[in-house]
Amino acid sequence: MKRKLRMGMVGGGAGAFIGEVHRIAARMTGEIELAAGVFGTDREKSLACGRDCYVPEDRIYQDYQTMVAAEAALPGDRRIDFAVICTPNRWHFPIAQAFLANGFDVMCEKPVAMSSAEAEELRRLTVERRRIFGLMHNYTGFPMVKQARRLIADGELGQLRKINVEYSLGWLAAPNAGKQAAWRVDPAQAGISGCMADIGTHAENLINYVTGLRITELSAELATFVEGRRLDDDGSVLLRFDNGARGLIFASEVSTGEENNLILKIYGDRAALEWRAQTPEDLIIRSNDAPIRILRRGWPGSGAEAAAASRLPAGHPEGFLEAFANIYSAFAEAVRSRQPGDFPGIDAGVSEMKFLEAIVANHAGDRKWTAMR
Amino acid sequence: MKRKLRMGMVGGGAGAFIGEVHRIAARMTGEIELAAGVFGTDREKSLACGRDCYVPEDRIYQDYQTMVAAEAALPGDRRIDFAVICTPNRWHFPIAQAFLANGFDVMCEKPVAMSSAEAEELRRLTVERRRIFGLMHNYTGFPMVKQARRLIADGELGQLRKINVEYSLGWLAAPNAGKQAAWRVDPAQAGISGCMADIGTHAENLINYVTGLRITELSAELATFVEGRRLDDDGSVLLRFDNGARGLIFASEVSTGEENNLILKIYGDRAALEWRAQTPEDLIIRSNDAPIRILRRGWPGSGAEAAAASRLPAGHPEGFLEAFANIYSAFAEAVRSRQPGDFPGIDAGVSEMKFLEAIVANHAGDRKWTAMR
Amino acid sequence: MKRKLRMGMVGGGAGAFIGEVHRIAARMTGEIELAAGVFGTDREKSLACGRDCYVPEDRIYQDYQTMVAAEAALPGDRRIDFAVICTPNRWHFPIAQAFLANGFDVMCEKPVAMSSAEAEELRRLTVERRRIFGLMHNYTGFPMVKQARRLIADGELGQLRKINVEYSLGWLAAPNAGKQAAWRVDPAQAGISGCMADIGTHAENLINYVTGLRITELSAELATFVEGRRLDDDGSVLLRFDNGARGLIFASEVSTGEENNLILKIYGDRAALEWRAQTPEDLIIRSNDAPIRILRRGWPGSGAEAAAASRLPAGHPEGFLEAFANIYSAFAEAVRSRQPGDFPGIDAGVSEMKFLEAIVANHAGDRKWTAMR
Amino acid sequence: MKRKLRMGMVGGGAGAFIGEVHRIAARMTGEIELAAGVFGTDREKSLACGRDCYVPEDRIYQDYQTMVAAEAALPGDRRIDFAVICTPNRWHFPIAQAFLANGFDVMCEKPVAMSSAEAEELRRLTVERRRIFGLMHNYTGFPMVKQARRLIADGELGQLRKINVEYSLGWLAAPNAGKQAAWRVDPAQAGISGCMADIGTHAENLINYVTGLRITELSAELATFVEGRRLDDDGSVLLRFDNGARGLIFASEVSTGEENNLILKIYGDRAALEWRAQTPEDLIIRSNDAPIRILRRGWPGSGAEAAAASRLPAGHPEGFLEAFANIYSAFAEAVRSRQPGDFPGIDAGVSEMKFLEAIVANHAGDRKWTAMR
Repeated sequence: MKRKLRMGMVGGGAGAFIGEVHRIAARMTGEIELAAGVFGTDREKSLACGRDCYVPEDRIYQDYQTMVAAEAALPGDRRIDFAVICTPNRWHFPIAQAFLANGFDVMCEKPVAMSSAEAEELRRLTVERRRIFGLMHNYTGFPMVKQARRLIADGELGQLRKINVEYSLGWLAAPNAGKQAAWRVDPAQAGISGCMADIGTHAENLINYVTGLRITELSAELATFVEGRRLDDDGSVLLRFDNGARGLIFASEVSTGEENNLILKIYGDRAALEWRAQTPEDLIIRSNDAPIRILRRGWPGSGAEAAAASRLPAGHPEGFLEAFANIYSAFAEAVRSRQPGDFPGIDAGVSEMKFLEAIVANHAGDRKWTAMR
Repeated sequence: MKRKLRMGMVGGGAGAFIGEVHRIAARMTGEIELAAGVFGTDREKSLACGRDCYVPEDRIYQDYQTMVAAEAALPGDRRIDFAVICTPNRWHFPIAQAFLANGFDVMCEKPVAMSSAEAEELRRLTVERRRIFGLMHNYTGFPMVKQARRLIADGELGQLRKINVEYSLGWLAAPNAGKQAAWRVDPAQAGISGCMADIGTHAENLINYVTGLRITELSAELATFVEGRRLDDDGSVLLRFDNGARGLIFASEVSTGEENNLILKIYGDRAALEWRAQTPEDLIIRSNDAPIRILRRGWPGSGAEAAAASRLPAGHPEGFLEAFANIYSAFAEAVRSRQPGDFPGIDAGVSEMKFLEAIVANHAGDRKWTAMR
Repeated sequence: MKRKLRMGMVGGGAGAFIGEVHRIAARMTGEIELAAGVFGTDREKSLACGRDCYVPEDRIYQDYQTMVAAEAALPGDRRIDFAVICTPNRWHFPIAQAFLANGFDVMCEKPVAMSSAEAEELRRLTVERRRIFGLMHNYTGFPMVKQARRLIADGELGQLRKINVEYSLGWLAAPNAGKQAAWRVDPAQAGISGCMADIGTHAENLINYVTGLRITELSAELATFVEGRRLDDDGSVLLRFDNGARGLIFASEVSTGEENNLILKIYGDRAALEWRAQTPEDLIIRSNDAPIRILRRGWPGSGAEAAAASRLPAGHPEGFLEAFANIYSAFAEAVRSRQPGDFPGIDAGVSEMKFLEAIVANHAGDRKWTAMR
Repeated sequence: MKRKLRMGMVGGGAGAFIGEVHRIAARMTGEIELAAGVFGTDREKSLACGRDCYVPEDRIYQDYQTMVAAEAALPGDRRIDFAVICTPNRWHFPIAQAFLANGFDVMCEKPVAMSSAEAEELRRLTVERRRIFGLMHNYTGFPMVKQARRLIADGELGQLRKINVEYSLGWLAAPNAGKQAAWRVDPAQAGISGCMADIGTHAENLINYVTGLRITELSAELATFVEGRRLDDDGSVLLRFDNGARGLIFASEVSTGEENNLILKIYGDRAALEWRAQTPEDLIIRSNDAPIRILRRGWPGSGAEAAAASRLPAGHPEGFLEAFANIYSAFAEAVRSRQPGDFPGIDAGVSEMKFLEAIVANHAGDRKWTAMR
């Protein structure tokens, strides 16, 4: 008989916005229960968080190593089915490695690691152990993003020419932006990039997901506007794609007054599309020979993939959590079926790390273009 | 020690949109588990739905009478804490009556009953049995609706003068709009009104919630555009309020092409506000002496009530399910604390029934105004 | 050989917003020169205004009676071709009467007169003297309003069911709103209505222009929110049309913070349209079986009438003045050709006065409906 | 006594969109009459256009050389006051040179010439002959662009950090886009750049006008998506400014379905602004510590410069032609007063040519940055 999947969480204690998002999204599926975890490095806070989430006391662990060992020792009808990793970037790799190596499936926050070498090692392990690896690029969970992908796959836009992605937010405009901000601009915890790792990777992933194109070369300008900050808080990247299309990613965390303004625009030779994360129910289609069309989630013109990722009738707005939960639903289905599903995996993780490495390398030099392999 | 509340559901089987919404919203809170239910009148479908939701087989009941009796007979540590009623209108009253009379708290879909007399009987029972009664007017759960209420309570709009609410949707524009539509225009199941009962009541409730004003008189024109339909599918209501303000509710289910376009505009002598259910994160403030301001959920200018009803940082859109879940969170807290909370209750139910009765009476006559008492 | 038409103006001196609008719009056509005028009752200001507009000194007249006499006495190659009347309402009738009676064509501000009797007398004169009479309802000059009319005429919306017009502005929210406001709420100068005469008539005219439907019955609630004001500053009107459609006009001049928020929504059984005067380049089309379409001025999907009323490529916004100038262009063409054209005339004037009289009569009584004949 | 200025036009005959725009804008001012011209190289068409515009037959000239000579020979009370040049780029320089050299003021379409050397020669002549030189970058004429400049000058945005300008249109997405398109991608007529010369220069000019910053270095990627086209139809330019700010201009004429989508976003360390040419009445202000504010033309929050550039009350939309006319009004005032005014002049022309030359040079090489001097 069907049972809920058991999820274990590493990271995501009180104060970490994204941990609670993972928990709500997992609950929304109705398919997953939170069964174990290490909710941060502060033991007291971890216990408090676990209790709040109705996790049995004996499965709120001291650290991830203990958790892996203890869960691996549990019988199959109690053991967690998969681990969710929502720590700062620094720990993604060792934790994912440990769970994979012990036979657990993994859902990991982005960026997947600190380097492409780490990402490739996770890919090796995932394949070797036949694990399901999910990478939480939640924007791919939006119904109208799926619809965008469908339109492009169906050739509705014709030959793709230009892809522009903007991701603006202002939360790092001032020097002190709180604890969650702090680790994101600390190289020891965040890695080789700040802004680009935090949000530029969403742009890269979204482009790959929607268009299927791969970046072949890029030219980047990173900037650090806040004095003393050690990583980029802003950047622009010119892109060349494998089909000859050009593109542009501009991401900033010092865009004063912007909340999470992610905008995707894709121009083909027949038509173009625009999707905005803050009004995610609309997919705007433009062409030179017809009126503007706005495809709406749940409305005629929006197809099967979008419908499958939808919970409500048109006009009742769905948002970020629903998209997040869609990733979890697809991941849960993959965990059950042992088949790949419609969510970013470890390949996307390798890609995002190569993207970051190419940006940082290009920025450091004075040649215009750097290949991305 | 804290435990999750146990919820029992009547109605809401497969095909009924709102039942699944209740279940997702309840899950989102993390505080509620679905423990029992009758998921429609078709036994097989009810069983399938219950199993899908991990409800133990022995608590998927034949009918609500059996359910009330069986649950009342269970020990306190197994018995449901409250019942959710999401059947067609016709059954709200007897089911709510049965649960209340047996000591259960109740969360009920709107409109609460078939008449104000029934609503008043539920109010009597609720008070007599000291029960918690929740009425699911979900729009009151939106953070920026709460912010609107706060601004008005703080006098930011000055003396209120004009209140306009539009609720347009097009799903009943054609004669056959499916099973869910069918009962809504069947007097035996829906009651004395179709469109006004289905969505006009949301408008009335929203006005009461946000402004605290009461309607004293109204003038109504109902219409039935689809031939053979036996209840209104459209209507306009002119309103007079107890403070001298005037208002307008226009609701339609034959507004071709509209999804769920609910718009609230309130004008005071100092400032005005506008809130739209399809872009619920914005609260637009206008005045004659300042630029337009858009207050955003999670952003400076949005206060404590909105923040408490919020799960995500600004710019990550929340929507309908989150608002729905806010009603459940507040209801759950009330069930635990036995104190009233920030959600519509049985008084709102009595009010909405008097509103409907006044509309129908006014429409039937040729005098301009009908008092609403 | 072609020559510019000569225009004479009565009213519209410094401080009167609409006079300058008429002059700019007339200039935009390139077909009209301002040749004579009485620019208000203050002789010095009138002279200053006329000189500013390059009107020869000897044709800046003392009063309209002098102007009619003097212009009628001029030879045909100097005499004005038509008179524009942009005084307060009170003087529309006598001035129009004088010019018509002396053989001049007339362009008049709305509302055309103080009563339907006056309007009918102007109609009689217009017909008798075979004059061209233009009534400045400028919203009918917008390209996408013309496109809306075209779509309805072509049956794109199917059978019309519901017509809602909102016109909100806030300029009269406070007691003292300046000189231009003062006469609009003075019965001696404005007539039997304030808000409804000033902006409600635009709504009535727009509905007639776009749909071709006639109002058969109405029910009205007028309000005066500012103490001591002698005419309505707000009102709502329920409408019944000759084809069975229902409608709603709600207009307010105390809608704090609103600028000139005119919104037209028309629902048919096949599709619906929405047009907003503040974003006039868009015509939104909705239906139950297709994505939202936004028809844009100058873009495929927008037809011949809109194109003919357009000066710029799509994406270069046109606005209020261009619409106004379109009325002038059509009027100028009618003056030259002696044929009726695509602009509101004296029939629209009679209609708007009957509309106002029906509203005021209905408001004064306690019966719900008043016929409009 | 005051008189209208006499304008002569070179170019702008039938079929050339921008010529008629110049004429309408000039008429709107009420200060300018079209007195002479060469309306294209086809004599018959030129005559037809001139007659249509009421230009006396004897002042519709054969070519610009004849026109310069003939007008220079006329007495001062008949001679044109200034010449407007709206030919393809190739002829801007010789025509401007001829008029300047003969003592006429000049209003010229952009880009001002074919090279910065030509632009500098025009600057030399302008200074030497003490002429007024206007460069038609019409976006600087919008009231809310002036308001944006005011806010930045007042320090409301703090230290500027990031400036992003997008200008997307789709008219060149297909190979054959008509006569007006043809010359814009012909190096002999357009110069060294297509898209960047046509619309990228608007972006550069707008940035300079609004911020006062100068570009010090740039990195560019030009693209030509339509096969066989000999100039760029798309490009992205990374910018570095003299105050340390960074920026981005991305312009495309193959953005299928876009009309004239010009968007300006400027981020400072205190606040940010956004202005869109298609909704030009709004200026959106964002900051990290306050709600979004939308400043509207004609409304409190919008200051003196915007008001001076405004003709209508708030809420009656003004657009492209009004902005264009504002440039003409300021230019006319400068012609009368012999004082510089608030419109782009020959310095802006030199700047735009250096901008284009730097882009083309950078694009041709593989070094990331090119200085712009």
